[in-house]
Parts: sequence; structure tokens; C-alpha cells
Amino acid sequence: MEEEKVFKDPVHKYIYVQDQLIWDLIDTPEFQRLRRIRQLGTTYLVFHGAEHSRFSHSLGVYEITRRIISQFERSEYPDWPREEKLLCLCAALLHDLGHGPFSHSIEEVMEFDHEEWSCHIIEGKTEVNRLLRTVDPDFPRKVASVIRKNYEKPIVVNLVSSQMDADRMDYLLRDAYFTGANYGTFDLDRILRVLRPHQGRIVVKGSGMHAVEDYLMSRYQMYWQVYFHPVTRSSEIILRKILLRAQELCRSGYAFAWIPDPILKLFRGELDVASYLKLDEALVQTAFAAWTEEEDKLLSQLCGRFLHRRLYKYITFEKEHESEAQLCFEELAAAGMDPGYELEIDFPYDLPYHVYRSAAEGLTEGGRGKPPILLLEPSGAVTEISRRSDVVPSITGMHRGQYRLYYDEEAAGRIRRKLKPRTLARLGLEPSGDA
Amino acid sequence: MEEEKVFKDPVHKYIYVQDQLIWDLIDTPEFQRLRRIRQLGTTYLVFHGAEHSRFSHSLGVYEITRRIISQFERSEYPDWPREEKLLCLCAALLHDLGHGPFSHSIEEVMEFDHEEWSCHIIEGKTEVNRLLRTVDPDFPRKVASVIRKNYEKPIVVNLVSSQMDADRMDYLLRDAYFTGANYGTFDLDRILRVLRPHQGRIVVKGSGMHAVEDYLMSRYQMYWQVYFHPVTRSSEIILRKILLRAQELCRSGYAFAWIPDPILKLFRGELDVASYLKLDEALVQTAFAAWTEEEDKLLSQLCGRFLHRRLYKYITFEKEHESEAQLCFEELAAAGMDPGYELEIDFPYDLPYHVYRSAAEGLTEGGRGKPPILLLEPSGAVTEISRRSDVVPSITGMHRGQYRLYYDEEAAGRIRRKLKPRTLARLGLEPSGDA
Amino acid sequence: MEEEKVFKDPVHKYIYVQDQLIWDLIDTPEFQRLRRIRQLGTTYLVFHGAEHSRFSHSLGVYEITRRIISQFERSEYPDWPREEKLLCLCAALLHDLGHGPFSHSIEEVMEFDHEEWSCHIIEGKTEVNRLLRTVDPDFPRKVASVIRKNYEKPIVVNLVSSQMDADRMDYLLRDAYFTGANYGTFDLDRILRVLRPHQGRIVVKGSGMHAVEDYLMSRYQMYWQVYFHPVTRSSEIILRKILLRAQELCRSGYAFAWIPDPILKLFRGELDVASYLKLDEALVQTAFAAWTEEEDKLLSQLCGRFLHRRLYKYITFEKEHESEAQLCFEELAAAGMDPGYELEIDFPYDLPYHVYRSAAEGLTEGGRGKPPILLLEPSGAVTEISRRSDVVPSITGMHRGQYRLYYDEEAAGRIRRKLKPRTLARLGLEPSGDA
Amino acid sequence: MEEEKVFKDPVHKYIYVQDQLIWDLIDTPEFQRLRRIRQLGTTYLVFHGAEHSRFSHSLGVYEITRRIISQFERSEYPDWPREEKLLCLCAALLHDLGHGPFSHSIEEVMEFDHEEWSCHIIEGKTEVNRLLRTVDPDFPRKVASVIRKNYEKPIVVNLVSSQMDADRMDYLLRDAYFTGANYGTFDLDRILRVLRPHQGRIVVKGSGMHAVEDYLMSRYQMYWQVYFHPVTRSSEIILRKILLRAQELCRSGYAFAWIPDPILKLFRGELDVASYLKLDEALVQTAFAAWTEEEDKLLSQLCGRFLHRRLYKYITFEKEHESEAQLCFEELAAAGMDPGYELEIDFPYDLPYHVYRSAAEGLTEGGRGKPPILLLEPSGAVTEISRRSDVVPSITGMHRGQYRLYYDEEAAGRIRRKLKPRTLARLGLEPSGDA
Repeated sequence: MEEEKVFKDPVHKYIYVQDQLIWDLIDTPEFQRLRRIRQLGTTYLVFHGAEHSRFSHSLGVYEITRRIISQFERSEYPDWPREEKLLCLCAALLHDLGHGPFSHSIEEVMEFDHEEWSCHIIEGKTEVNRLLRTVDPDFPRKVASVIRKNYEKPIVVNLVSSQMDADRMDYLLRDAYFTGANYGTFDLDRILRVLRPHQGRIVVKGSGMHAVEDYLMSRYQMYWQVYFHPVTRSSEIILRKILLRAQELCRSGYAFAWIPDPILKLFRGELDVASYLKLDEALVQTAFAAWTEEEDKLLSQLCGRFLHRRLYKYITFEKEHESEAQLCFEELAAAGMDPGYELEIDFPYDLPYHVYRSAAEGLTEGGRGKPPILLLEPSGAVTEISRRSDVVPSITGMHRGQYRLYYDEEAAGRIRRKLKPRTLARLGLEPSGDA
Repeated sequence: MEEEKVFKDPVHKYIYVQDQLIWDLIDTPEFQRLRRIRQLGTTYLVFHGAEHSRFSHSLGVYEITRRIISQFERSEYPDWPREEKLLCLCAALLHDLGHGPFSHSIEEVMEFDHEEWSCHIIEGKTEVNRLLRTVDPDFPRKVASVIRKNYEKPIVVNLVSSQMDADRMDYLLRDAYFTGANYGTFDLDRILRVLRPHQGRIVVKGSGMHAVEDYLMSRYQMYWQVYFHPVTRSSEIILRKILLRAQELCRSGYAFAWIPDPILKLFRGELDVASYLKLDEALVQTAFAAWTEEEDKLLSQLCGRFLHRRLYKYITFEKEHESEAQLCFEELAAAGMDPGYELEIDFPYDLPYHVYRSAAEGLTEGGRGKPPILLLEPSGAVTEISRRSDVVPSITGMHRGQYRLYYDEEAAGRIRRKLKPRTLARLGLEPSGDA
Repeated sequence: MEEEKVFKDPVHKYIYVQDQLIWDLIDTPEFQRLRRIRQLGTTYLVFHGAEHSRFSHSLGVYEITRRIISQFERSEYPDWPREEKLLCLCAALLHDLGHGPFSHSIEEVMEFDHEEWSCHIIEGKTEVNRLLRTVDPDFPRKVASVIRKNYEKPIVVNLVSSQMDADRMDYLLRDAYFTGANYGTFDLDRILRVLRPHQGRIVVKGSGMHAVEDYLMSRYQMYWQVYFHPVTRSSEIILRKILLRAQELCRSGYAFAWIPDPILKLFRGELDVASYLKLDEALVQTAFAAWTEEEDKLLSQLCGRFLHRRLYKYITFEKEHESEAQLCFEELAAAGMDPGYELEIDFPYDLPYHVYRSAAEGLTEGGRGKPPILLLEPSGAVTEISRRSDVVPSITGMHRGQYRLYYDEEAAGRIRRKLKPRTLARLGLEPSGDA
Repeated sequence: MEEEKVFKDPVHKYIYVQDQLIWDLIDTPEFQRLRRIRQLGTTYLVFHGAEHSRFSHSLGVYEITRRIISQFERSEYPDWPREEKLLCLCAALLHDLGHGPFSHSIEEVMEFDHEEWSCHIIEGKTEVNRLLRTVDPDFPRKVASVIRKNYEKPIVVNLVSSQMDADRMDYLLRDAYFTGANYGTFDLDRILRVLRPHQGRIVVKGSGMHAVEDYLMSRYQMYWQVYFHPVTRSSEIILRKILLRAQELCRSGYAFAWIPDPILKLFRGELDVASYLKLDEALVQTAFAAWTEEEDKLLSQLCGRFLHRRLYKYITFEKEHESEAQLCFEELAAAGMDPGYELEIDFPYDLPYHVYRSAAEGLTEGGRGKPPILLLEPSGAVTEISRRSDVVPSITGMHRGQYRLYYDEEAAGRIRRKLKPRTLARLGLEPSGDA
């Protein structure tokens, strides 16, 4: 490239592009599609600023990766494999390429994995694939293997995916910026200054422990304040129920007045890369809007709820009262509420998000866990952070979650005559006068 | 309301709701629809952060209005009509209710006016109308008359619509925040401190002149850096040409493989309130995505350009060389480019945005101009700001605009054999080898 | 006051003054003197931005108190005694009036207490006293009793002094702003929204628990990163040793070439209010500069160190190796270093700062501890925060402190022949060649 | 240097030191002395946050220079003389070394020039000089010649001193940060991106014109809001009158109870480098505090005014009414006010600050003006910015200044019987009852 180019970015000020390949990858239809996928799914229904897309997040992950590598190069650390720079940048930029509309919700209902789709797109017949092959016919496979976490040099995988990778750093800062939740910010420059490539892993200089604590506490705050927000959860429940119902109808041969082809393929498990790339949130939202006029009442009502933000209410149970939540659920179901569509028990503990796990599993390559954060002591020894920090163990595991019972308020109103006084009180309902 | 409620907002930190009516209005389907209309149309194609919606802007306008009134009340200014508070808040909240998808572009192509639609929705059979009537059967009409700028008390109109109203203040701050263009910020608290209700108008305390200059310079910067950005203009041109082509096809009886009903009604001029409320950017984008597969090649190519961000290139002509731009346009058309779809001359001067006009017209109720900014001197006299400021006259009128000739790069390539060397050079094309 | 006045403040944007008394108090010589006392003592030698004064901090404490009360009034909480507003504001503004130059260091050497001096100034023959008496002859005593924490209404004392009072909130934000340590910020608006007056105390609405955690973690970060910074501690040690030496010389009848009268009185324990008010950091620094030319070599060298920032080096010992630190100290002293002036063991645990104590003592009025943070549950019950939070217990007590042995590097160099190899290594010294 | 070191800086986040020489220069007594000189003189009496020192500003100028050069190197611009890097960094760091206490005020009273003193210190017998000579015996002379603006390569002088040099960029951002005047900020990264070394000068890429306008408007705002603030000017007048009086007394052989030696030498014009380095603001302030008890009543009162911030009041006259200001001055003097000490006419136009001058003089090396800002057009031509910008000409020259007549309010009260009614009204005085 003749001259470095920039994107204006509200989080990082500028995003610097120095390789023609990166510039061209951003310009592909596959990457442009990420503009039509929101970064935080339905969170904008609670934090109205959270309308930012996977596109801007992906640029941010690229930029943080670029800065880390640039510092590794400037400091001439011997453990850093300089020849892997472009691979790291491409993997960072493209790791979210496979995200579909409202991914996390859809992934829970349908069985699929966005990282796998990222690899399909990278290795399939796409513009992205064509560009990557200009580097080397094997380059797409390499990029995919970094994303799949089995690339031959673990330090490259470690840079792109760990408990403190560019992905997480960008999304915390970005989500904090767009929601306005300033408790989610931390000092990125300070973190970048203490990262070190060390014997095939990225570690943190010992004196940077407090900087890492600060980062982890931001994560903790964002999880409880934003990602697990009870009203966001409610919107995700509605969304999942819409998908469940539509899929059910689809399987039972119901004739939709209108259903877009890629969604049909999704329900039938027949998605190929070309169709997958047509799935975006505009399409899903347009389908939902159309479905508010479907004959199936359940589907049309759920879609109306989603579109006009009429979400399910909820009652909260402390963790130790799980059985009570269960009993309440059963009472409502017995009284006539539909346990599949009008009720749901939610416990954020089970989610893909987790604050930080230092347990043995985290170190296992095969487990779900991402590699833990390691401190490099002045002695040269490497210590997992929760052994040295007072603060980190307190947020590992997050055992203070609560159970929440979500319910369709109107349906509950209709059956209130059949409910016990205590349940009525919990639901904020008056005992029915005509009982 | 029992207890004040808040929305977390990245621009104003919090948006405070103290009236049940405001809370309920925000919850209506008509207002929720604004979540599906971007504040800055296609600007997100240039500034990727600019994905924010009319929903968050409308809350911001409400909040600034609330703060202004709250300060007027606290300071007990005698010229402020306290009884108009709720009316002002409702008008501020609802003034953008009629915005359609990519409004400014659509308004240029189709003939309609978003403010008029705001009034239709307020006065039509809608949930918003039902809620407003709970205050007083005449209340919807009052709100609409404030938006139409003919409410009986000019100070109310002046608060909601002037050269320095809550609308402009919010959008400058918000657009600067989301694009990351920090040159667009100004000190809102400082402005709010110097506003005064005075004899039926909102004026500025004389000592606040520099604060106003700062605000106007932010506007100036935002206009040149963001709103008139040449690449944004290009995306708007593509958008307009899609609409033009689709409408043309529609009129000529072309059979679309798929065209959503509200868009059809839009083209036919048959929109009613109910259909209008179904128009959102998800729908338009989904239509464009579908149209990439339409048989009409012109339409499908334009839609592909929009979706995958393959915009028209442009050449720039200084203002004094308008005729050259025209000649160049004609040469390209003569050589075979389609003057309706493959070419366009753009001069930002003609846009709905204008930095600041102090001219007589600005004072005229009937003109396009909004009331000018008036300084209240210690003597009690009122002076239009450009009479006292050195800086303001320099940005009034903005005569340094440039002409830009936008063109379809591929089409230009095809006809390059027929072009003069100078034109080829301007387009960055090599003279054709096979000539 | 006819019209509200403001100070521009970088932390709170504006500080609003609405009472003539507050305005006049700020204008007294006693309050203006706070401009000549730095907020963070010698910290500017490590964080060069930390040059801010007690003056700006005191305005900040006033402003936060004003905002808290203003919200209590707006929300019409019945447990808030409205008639105490002016008393609270005055106590908040004046609580630091008695701070002397480099207070914390001087307090450790000399025996005196800045809060007691605040009360002396408020109750003595001063301009502040004269103004306060215009409210009521008993008003100065009331203000002093709030500062002494024995005012008859505990809620007033609680507002001005607790684990989460306006004093701490302002200094955390202000110190973070001026040092640039952005990990010390927290969301003040969010905290203010969840404070409640409740049965004679200020408590926190239960749903605000995470906001309080965020505030406490900022405190934790600031303590370790700024307040306990090892180099700041070194400058404080030098400062204390200067004071010790000068006092010692003074007592032994040494004839100073120049010693300012208020400092002489300080050393002799003869300070009265008038002399105390002449003590400021300009005076102390000027004395130190003059003393660099004193005949007493120890004093002149220490002053040169302070002035030109040539601080003592240090070695770190983990908490469990306290005895090693002691042994090392003894070895150096035995080898000839002056244990009173050239060496010092420091353990930040013993400092006036503490992160947060929930222990029983904290609840005792007589103890050192300030009242703990209480959460108001929806049930009306009140719970100390560390019972509900996972995070707070982890930072209560801070048992991970380290011992640091500070030493005069040059003196250590001179005696290195007598030191053991291990000690030499610790000090980063080569074994002496000529041994 | 083995490893890059940093200072935490609130304006630039971090200041990066990569050369041992820079690190050592910062550690010299001469550079550490800048901690005791405020950046903005008496401005802290109006903007209480403005307590920052020349020390932090000098680090900031160094850092901006480092970033500019680092970008020049990264972009490999051929017109940049790489071998001059260290010289530029040293000159940037040290250019303010000669600032004395309250420099601008003192410079107006005494005849001396801080840049000249910077050169004396660099070339004299100092620690700074010793360190610079380790590079090359001629290096101190080179550094001084850059500061004196006669170094052989004009581009080096241009980088360190021009209308848009690192000095100005840092002080605008820093002063805005510490005062809290956020209208003084501009986008530094954006400016840095458009600077280019070009034929012996630093120019601005044409497309960066709006960025420069934004920077110049920040300057304009800071001048009117902060640097020319009428109350700051009042404090400077008091300060100058103290110096004038003390010098007058000194010359007349008055016996001061206490006068520090460096100040005596200053008054006598006998300052050498060693004494000059002892002059700091702590010393001056301590002298003023002592002088509040001097026998000379004029001196003691002026010192009391300064110390306790009892400043002179003022009346404002529009520029076209200069003669009225003069008449008013004469009337007050004729009525008995001391024209030398109790009165002063001030017109900010005459100050060392100026917004921006494009005039021919600005291009002359010998004139006061600094080199103007040049735009590099795509054609390769270079244009002075005010020829292309609409905004810049409007702030060049700033002809809207006002005359202010400052006066001792108490003195005016004493002679009010002799004043005309109109003058009384201007001064806000009642006509004297006992006339």
C-alpha cells in the first residue's frame, strides 16, 4: 500500500490499515454483511445506544491485534514469530465472519456454531477466500485453523483467543462505549504495555497484575449490568420462542404467507454458504414484521411482542431457592399456561459468557475454556493470576446468580383464579374478585 | 409517576423520565418503530460507528428540552409559560415520529415531508394519539401545531425549533459521539446556562456569545466532515437511483419477483398511516437484497452496489468551475454513459443542511429558515449574533462548496476510448491502448 | 443571592453556588490558603499531573454534597431533615480547612490532627468564624461538631463522613483525573441515584450494589496504583526525615541560617491559629530550598534530595518475609548506615488509608473506622454490603501488602564491603573489588 | 536504554521515553525546577484547576515532537532529516527551561526573556549542559540555536517553533484539560496525520484544512475564555504592581524586613544562572506572604490582595471608545487615585498571545511572528491557509478587543465625592451622601 489508510472509530480513535490485503478483505460482500448483524443482539431494546454492528467490532479486534504485534516488533521480543503477523491480522479481522443474525439466541435454538461458519466462509467459494489465496493457496486453511484453535503455533492461537484476547478487549470497550455503561472501561494502553510473548504463549508482566484485575472487574461489571440484564434476557426468550414456533410450524407443514428462503433453509438444516450469507438481521426483522399478520396466533403474538417491545415480566428467586422457582413454574403450567411458550426459567450461570475461570479445564486445549491469564514473575516463573490476586478468585465462578421465572403477563392474568395467594402476590396480581 | 425513571444514554449519561405520559409514549409501537430508522441514513457506510437510530436521538431531544425547562423553572424567569411544559416535552419527543427509512434521500425522490407525517401519526388513529388525548381531546392538535410551527405561543415553537434548538444540539453531540468525530462536540452545559426566555423568544445572554460561536463552529465542522462527506453523498446517490429505478419500473408495470406492499404504496402515492408505519430500514434493505436478483439489470446492479458498498467514484471541481463540471458530464453522456443512472453532479450547497443564516428570510415565519440566534445585551436590547461576532459571518452562507461529478467507474471504463485525454486523466484512467 | 454562580471545574464541569454564605466563605483568606496546599502531598513527584490543591477538592466535596441533598429534596424523602442543608454544605466545604502543608507526612512526625485544626479555625478568631456567626452565634460550633462527628443528628455526620461520603467520592475522581489514572474513575451519577436517607443514616438502594462495588474497586486500584506507590512513599520518607532532623536540630539549639517563624513554632509545639494559617507548602518548600545550604550536612543533603527528586531506592519483601526485611535492615545498620536517617522499613498496611472495613469496629462510633456501607433491601431490611457482595470481602483488609526497605543508595555504596553477597545482590550492588 | 519507560500523563495518556539522554535530562535539578513554575501563572485564581506546571507541559511538548518525528520516520518522507531527531527532542524538552516564576508578568516589568535564559542554562555550567555535551561538545550550542531560531536547518526550527508547533498544541490541550475548558480541545491525532516535512518546512496536507481550522478555533476560544479572562488580567496587574513597588523600594534603598537574595539580584539586574535557578514560585509567594507585614503600606496591601485574592475591579469600554477609557482614567487620577498603583488600562490586543497572523511579517524571520501555516495542495503548490479558509481570516487580528479600566475599589470609594455621576454609575457607586 502506498499510504496507510484509516477508519475513524469512536473507540480507538482511528483504525490503521497498512496492508492492501486487509483493505480488500474489508471491502468484500462477506465482510460488509457484518454491518447488518448487531454486536449485541437484542440488547438495544434495553440500552438504546447498543446499535453497533459486528462490522465495527471486527475492525476493533483487528486494530488491537495490530497494536499488540506492533509493540512486540518494536520491543524486538525474541519469542515473537514475526512471520505470522499477516496471519494474525487476518484471523483477528475475520474471526466473527460467520456470525448470523442474533447469533447467540439462534445458536441456542438451532444447532450451529458461528466459528464453524466463519471457517466455512473462509474456505468456501467466496471473495474472502479468493483474496486470501493470493497470499498462498494454503493461507485460507491457516486462517481457519487459527480460528479453530488448532494452528501449529500455539502463540498465534493464544493471541487471537484467550481470556484476555483482542476480541474480548474490543467488545468490552465497545459495548461500554455504545451502551454508555462507563463502568465497563479499562485502560487498554496499560494492558498492551504489559503483554509479552513468552515460550509459545502470551503472558502478562508481573507488575501488570493490577491492570489485569481492573480489566477483569470491568468484565464482571459488564456481565451483571449489561450482558445478563434481566430485560435483555426477556427479549432473548421471546426471540427464541419465535424461532421455536416458526420451526415447529415449518416442520408441521404450515403454509406461511411469507417466509424468506434462507430462513426456510435454516429451519430445514439445509443452509449452504451462499444462503447463509443472505441471512442478516434486516431479513429476520422483516420476517418477524410480516409474521405479525400470520394466521398462527402464537407466532403472530410473539412477533408483535418482539417488534413493539412488549416483553415478558419476571420474578426473581435467590440461587438457594431453585426448587421454589420450579414449583412456581409447575403451578402456573398446571393452571393452564403453556409451559413451552408462555413460561421460562432462566439462570444466567449457564450462559456462554463467563467471567473468568482459572480451573484446570481452562488449561485444557479441548475444553470450552479459554487459556487462563498468566503472570510472568521477575524470576521467570509463570503463575496463573488467581494465585496472586485477592480480587480475581472472588469473581471466578460467580456463584451469586439468581433464578428468574419469565412469564406472559396476560396469560397469567387469565388464569389468576386458579393461583395460590402467595403466587398472586409474587406476580403482583390482586386475588381475582370473582373467585 | 411514583419514582423518576431513567434510560442509560451514552451522550447525556441518563435520560430522566418524570411523567407517566412520556414513559407511555416511548412504549408505543409508533415510537418503538424509530429504533428501525437510522439517524444518519447511509452515513454508517463511511463512519462505521454511525449506526444509531432516531429512537435514541428523539430521547436526547426530549432530555435537552427537559433540562432547558427545568432551568427556566428553577431560575423562575417570568417570561417562561410554566403551563406549557408537558406540551414542549411531548413535541420534543415526537417531532421525528414521521421519519421514514433513509428519510432525506427518500424525501428528495418522492414528494413527502417527514414533519407532515409526524403530525399525521399524532393526529391519526394511533396509540400515540390515544395517549395524548388522555390529557385533553385537543392535546394532539396542540402537539402537531408546535411541530408545524403555528402554535399560538411562539416561544414554545421557538424552543422546539430554531437555529439552536434541542434537536440540533442533540444531533450534533450524538452524531459526533457515534461517528467518533470529536470536533463536533461543544459544551452543552455552558449553552444551557446562557439561554433565557425573553418576550416570546428564546435568546442568549450576551456573555454567552463565545459559547454560541463554539456551537456554530462544531456545526460547521460536522457539516464539512460528516454530513457533506463525499463518500456519504455517493451512497445517497446510489440510494436515490435505486428508488428512481424501482419507481419507474413500478409505473411501467414491471413485475417484481418480490416487492413489499408498503413500498408499492409509497411508489404509487397511496400511503396511509398504517402502511407508513410499516416502512422501516429493515424492510427497505431486505427489498434491496431481494432486488439484487431482479431481472432488471439496472436495478439489480444498483442494489448490489448499495448492499456491498461498491459506490460511485467522483471528481471534484472548484465552485468557480461549475461549467467545467457540466461539460465533463456532457462529454461522458455523449460517449454513451446513462445520464440518468450512471452520472450525477452534486453540489452540497443545495442541501437541507445549512450552517447558519442570519438573513432577513431567517426571521420570516414562512421561509425555510429557522429563527436566528439573538443575544440579549446587558442594556436589554436584542442583537442578532452575526452583528457582534467576528466568526459567525465567516461561516454564514458557506460559499466555498465544490461541485462533484459522480460516475459509475465500470461504465466509464467501457467508453474510455471515446474520451478526451484530459477527461481520462481526471478519471484516473489510462488512455485506451486499442484506440 | 440574585443569580446562581459557578466555578468551572474539570471534574464536575461546574460547581454551582446558590447561597451568598458559601460564596463569601470561599472568599476568605483561610479558605484561599488551601490553594497553597496540594491535595496529594508529594505524589506530584511520581504522577506529574497531581499538582491540584485542597482548594479544588474542597469545592468538589461541597458540590457532591449539594447534589446529594438536591436529589433528596427533589425526591421528597421523609427521612431527610431539610433544615440541615446549609449546615451540611458548610461542613462539606470547610472540613479540610485545617490541612497543613504535606499534612499526612507532618501528622506522622509531629503530633497533630488536621480535623482538629479545621475546628480551631472555624471556632477561632477568623473571617470564616465571623461569617458563620451571621447565621446564628451557635453555627460555628455546629459546623465543628459535624466535623468532629458528634453533631446531634447522626445522619448529617453520616452524609459528611462515612465509607462512601462526598469527601472520598471527590478525591477519588479528582486524583484519578489529575494523575491520569483512569482506573480510578467510577460512575458518580449512578451512585448518587441510589443513595437514600433512611432512619438516621445514608444507605444504598439494594439494586445499587454493583455500583458500590465499582466504586470500591476504583478505591482499591487507586490505593495500590497511586496512594501506596513505592516511589511516592520514598518521597514521603525523605520529607519526614527532613522534618525529624530539623526538629532535632531545633531542640538541640542549632542556629539555622534561616528558619521561618511558623515552622519554628511548629517544631516547638507553640502554634496558634494565626501562625498555623501562615503555614503553606510554598513556605515549607522555600525553607527546604534554603536549608540545602545549611551547615548541618544531613539536613542539607536531605533537602537537596527532596528538591531535586533524588529519592531513596527500595527492596521489596513479601508479607510473609517480614523478618528478612528486619534482618536486612539490621545488617545495613550494623555495617554503618544510620538507622534513623538512611534506612526505613515501610509497610503500607499501617496507613491512614484503608480500602474498606466492614468489621464490627467500623460500626462503633468511637473507633477509627468510618460507618460501613449499608444496602437497603426491598424488604426494608438493611445489610452490610460485604454480606451480599462477592467482591467486597476480597478487598477488605488487603492482606497482600509488601514490606519495603528504603535506603540511601550512596551510603549503602560506601559500606558495601561489609555486606553479605545476598544483600549485595538484593541492592543491585557488585561485590566490592577491593575486599 | 534497555526498555522504553513511561510517564503517566493525563493529557497524552503516556509519555514515552526511549533515549537515556532524555531520561537523564528530566532528572536534572534544572529541569526538576520547572515543577515549581506554574504553566499559567496566576490563572489558577480564576480557573482553580489550572495548577499545572511547566514541568508537565515540557514533557508534553517533548511527547508531541516525538510522535510527529515517529510518523515522519514510519512514512519515510524524503524531506525529513532523520539525523536531527535527538536534537529536536532535546530542544522540545528544554525550550521552556528558562521560564521564571510568573514569567509573562515578570517579563513585562523587568526586561528579560525566558528563551534567552533557556539558552543560558543550556550553555552555562549546569547539569543539563554536562549531559548534552556527552553527545558532542557542540551539542549544547546546537540545542540553543534551535531555541534561538537560527539553527542551520530551518525545518528543525520550524518543527519546534511555528504557528502550529508542538509547544502550542500541548499547551492548548493541557490548559483546556486542567482548566476544564473543554472548548479548547481539538483532535491531535488528526493534526498529526496531516503534517508533512516539505522543502525545509513543516506543511499541512491540503485535505487537512478543516482540522487546522478546528485547531485555530480552539485557540481563539482559549484566548477569549481563558488567557484574556478579565479576572486573570486583574491578578496579573496586581502582581506587576507588587514587582514595580518592590523594585522601586529596593532602588530607593528601603530596608526590607526580609527579601530573598535571588529576588534582590533580579531587581538589581545582577542575576546569574545559579541565582536564576533559585527563583521559583514558592520563593516569590513566600516573599509576598512575608511582605504583607512590611512597613511600606502600598507593598503590604498589594501583597495581601494577591495572597487573599482581593483583586481590582474593572469597567469595560468597547474598542471604539478608547478615549472614554482614557478620560475616565484621568478623572480618577485627578480626583486623587494613584495612577501608578491604583489604576490601569488594559487592552489584551497588545499581549504576547495572538490568535493567528498570516501577514507578511509572519514570514519574516526577524519579526515577532512565527511562521504561518501552509497547505500543501495536491498540485504540489503551497498556500498560506487564510487564502483558502473562510474561517481563518475572521480570527486573524481579533479586532473586537475591549479596553478595560482596572481600579482599586476601596481607593475609588474614598474619592467618590469628587466624581461625576456618570463615572459613579460606571463604578457601581452611589453618589456620596455627604457631598
